[in-house]
Amino acid sequence: MASRRHRLLVASNRGPVTFSEGDDGDFIVRRGGGGLVTALGALAKLHDVTWVSHALGEGDVAMRDSVGGAAFDEQARGGGSYRLRIVGQPDRTYDGYYLEIANPLLWFLQHRLFGFGWHPSITRSTHAAWRSYQRINERIAAALFEELVLTGAEAGERQIVMVHDYHLFLVPGLVRDRARAAQRAVPFIQFFLHIPWPDPGAWRALPRPWIKEICTSLLACEVLGFQTTADAEAFQRTVQHFLGASVDLRRGEVRYLGRVTRVRAYPISVAVDGFEEHATSRSVQRLRERIAAMRPEGPDGRLIVRVDRTDPSKNIVRGFEAYRLLLTEHPELHGKVAMFCQLDPSRQDIAEYVDYLAQVRSAAKTLNQRFGTEDWTPVHVNLDSNFQAGVAAYLEYDVLFVNPVADGMNLVSKEGPLVNARDGVVVLSDQTGSFNELGPYVIPVNPFDITQQAEALLEALLMPLDERAERAEALRRQVRDHDVTGWMDAQLADIVHLQTRAARAAQESVEAP
Amino acid sequence: MASRRHRLLVASNRGPVTFSEGDDGDFIVRRGGGGLVTALGALAKLHDVTWVSHALGEGDVAMRDSVGGAAFDEQARGGGSYRLRIVGQPDRTYDGYYLEIANPLLWFLQHRLFGFGWHPSITRSTHAAWRSYQRINERIAAALFEELVLTGAEAGERQIVMVHDYHLFLVPGLVRDRARAAQRAVPFIQFFLHIPWPDPGAWRALPRPWIKEICTSLLACEVLGFQTTADAEAFQRTVQHFLGASVDLRRGEVRYLGRVTRVRAYPISVAVDGFEEHATSRSVQRLRERIAAMRPEGPDGRLIVRVDRTDPSKNIVRGFEAYRLLLTEHPELHGKVAMFCQLDPSRQDIAEYVDYLAQVRSAAKTLNQRFGTEDWTPVHVNLDSNFQAGVAAYLEYDVLFVNPVADGMNLVSKEGPLVNARDGVVVLSDQTGSFNELGPYVIPVNPFDITQQAEALLEALLMPLDERAERAEALRRQVRDHDVTGWMDAQLADIVHLQTRAARAAQESVEAP
Repeated sequence: MASRRHRLLVASNRGPVTFSEGDDGDFIVRRGGGGLVTALGALAKLHDVTWVSHALGEGDVAMRDSVGGAAFDEQARGGGSYRLRIVGQPDRTYDGYYLEIANPLLWFLQHRLFGFGWHPSITRSTHAAWRSYQRINERIAAALFEELVLTGAEAGERQIVMVHDYHLFLVPGLVRDRARAAQRAVPFIQFFLHIPWPDPGAWRALPRPWIKEICTSLLACEVLGFQTTADAEAFQRTVQHFLGASVDLRRGEVRYLGRVTRVRAYPISVAVDGFEEHATSRSVQRLRERIAAMRPEGPDGRLIVRVDRTDPSKNIVRGFEAYRLLLTEHPELHGKVAMFCQLDPSRQDIAEYVDYLAQVRSAAKTLNQRFGTEDWTPVHVNLDSNFQAGVAAYLEYDVLFVNPVADGMNLVSKEGPLVNARDGVVVLSDQTGSFNELGPYVIPVNPFDITQQAEALLEALLMPLDERAERAEALRRQVRDHDVTGWMDAQLADIVHLQTRAARAAQESVEAP
Repeated sequence: MASRRHRLLVASNRGPVTFSEGDDGDFIVRRGGGGLVTALGALAKLHDVTWVSHALGEGDVAMRDSVGGAAFDEQARGGGSYRLRIVGQPDRTYDGYYLEIANPLLWFLQHRLFGFGWHPSITRSTHAAWRSYQRINERIAAALFEELVLTGAEAGERQIVMVHDYHLFLVPGLVRDRARAAQRAVPFIQFFLHIPWPDPGAWRALPRPWIKEICTSLLACEVLGFQTTADAEAFQRTVQHFLGASVDLRRGEVRYLGRVTRVRAYPISVAVDGFEEHATSRSVQRLRERIAAMRPEGPDGRLIVRVDRTDPSKNIVRGFEAYRLLLTEHPELHGKVAMFCQLDPSRQDIAEYVDYLAQVRSAAKTLNQRFGTEDWTPVHVNLDSNFQAGVAAYLEYDVLFVNPVADGMNLVSKEGPLVNARDGVVVLSDQTGSFNELGPYVIPVNPFDITQQAEALLEALLMPLDERAERAEALRRQVRDHDVTGWMDAQLADIVHLQTRAARAAQESVEAP
């Protein structure tokens, strides 16, 4: 780890906290629990962190206004403090950016959810939404640049900007352009993509100028981080195809317009200590009892669990089809197995998501109608954004079923084994980023293959106890040894390494005769 | 061209002719008009050709039975003669192979028509259909091998097998295995794919063993032919990804299990002379008058034409949306422009195609209801498999609209300009194979972008006459100079070149001390 204290500017669509106004005019702060937030919490202890993100609700806007739009001090989870700058407001421009471009267009495209014969269609409305996407990216870039100027740089120091995810594809290029226009040193810009980067063929659905704008902006970075080496390679082939950039896949280097961008894989993970602690909380334990009661009684009783957002990429409906096939072909399991699904109804302001949720409900209902008895409910579905119920389900699963058709990483498959108390078996799609790390210890599934998923569930249900224990232990060790702080440390180490090298090269060129 | 006479064995799902039984017990022969059939007609004059294909109907079965299942002599278009061997019968196995695996599974996958959140699902039925696919491929391979033995090989000659398209992916490997098992020399096997080969990511929807079976079989070939270099590269990345084969993209060489397979692009084309002659036939001319009458009267009257199968990859519905946007934003065009769509209702024994045809009908109807008047019908749709009406439409277009979301080559964009009599403008999707050759002379469109397609149609409608003439002439020249015989000649030249090189190498190793 870098021992030196750095000035870091972080940008993401969603901030680490959201605000709401209390009755007494005070602000109520709600801290997020995601990996990024936790990792940067740890970072805040060691470095000067300024975080720029977009206002998501009225509380955020009120908070922003109460400080005159400037950055203000906030406490990070884990004790460090950082500066937070809230930008913009949730307006029509934000809707175009978020509800038309980021989700569903980019999300769908990057998870291969479009059947090209029918979707997407780029209409006048989509073109207008793209201008909104550009404007929101400009809002964030402008604020980042202001913070760059305000926080300044000491002699010999290069400020570091870390930009997150597909909402902000255009920010790296915009920050660089602003620095150049102001005749300031261009900061060290790094970008991390949390979701998959598909092959060039999948990008074809976008207008060429948009693809070029995205790719050119990303190549303004010194380092680009992806979840997996497959994503990193697909990115390199994409810029080769659409920009004619020169790529060196083995070294992970892209040359374009005289600059070099490093392309790396940094698999994200769980904040182990915090997560384990969370699992012991009273509210989780209380929910745990309720979930345990869903497991059919007797020594053969088994509980299959899935924890997901209701996103088509999560493949919930095909999962039900596999379970249905299992129950059809194995009547001996009736009354002995149950499935609990903790499902967060996702993005219900987007039509495709409303449809998908309806399909999920209907599939679960059909299953229970077909197989359910007075004493046995084959599927329990809990539809709310109850994070604690998910953690409680992790504790109680005999089989954790994770079958997305595409997933940048998939933290469920890491969080589950970390806290599970029953040596549960993980059935995991080979289309997740986490499969690269957990593959040897899980039962792999092809998320498109209903038959094979049914067979995998059966294998998981019947696995002998000693093999369960061995695999569960291996999974736990793998996750513990690759904490989310490691994810952030690896990125910072690369940044420091590249900065040192660049500084040495500059020094040598000064010393040369 | 090779001056030597070769023994060629050709295999394809559909044969060059179909048979039906006449009232008097005779067989009525209907010769196909596709590029492959025409190219091999020319070939039959120069070489000994045996063609193996599957029986498609009762007439084919009766013909096959009348010759005891053996090969028989047939006349090719253009005068040469060849031997035809009809295999199998249209049974349930054929249905699994054709209606479940080849279409829609492989066709959909290779044209990126699946939205992965919903489709495809690999079920028990799909697994059974895959076994049918294997069995039909075995039927063809067994017949090919019998013909190999029957036609024999002269000393120093290596027999040549040419296998066509995605229906027969497994044939190359199966032929090689049979030759080896019989301790005969493995023939020179070549394969040509008529449809796109997508990036590795698109193949993920299939069970891994199927992908490996397909790829391993194809690598039993000496040469693999694709429509474009992009397809050839995507294939190489696919075998690299799924088989760990070693690829040299620059040289187009794949090394796998100690063998080398050459990967080449051979863009298919039109049989120029025959097609031009066809366009002058009386029946085409009669249809031409009817189509010309659809063009609104007056000097500004313009006719847009599309000629397609009703396949989702052809993008007919988005095409109507673009036309609708054009008419919405340009009322000055009302009564001045009309669109004629000659649409062949495709694969109506597959549900997805029935749905798509309904969507096409509905979109056309909506358009006419919205804009039509007593004197003006904005869209004329002719739904039948009338090849001659398509040719007649080619003669009469002012704008030829070709906007598929994916297409291996797209012969419409080559046939149209070859015979068009009005210096018509071609609006062409950049996702077609033909775009590589015709790009500079067409108005390019992104098939997903409704707005841009509407703008392209407008540009085409308003193009000055001299520019129209210049572009039309350039298109015509390009197609005339790249006839389908050139496509076949290039493949044969590569085969001869590789055979000569191999023979020389063998000779040298004999002469070495």
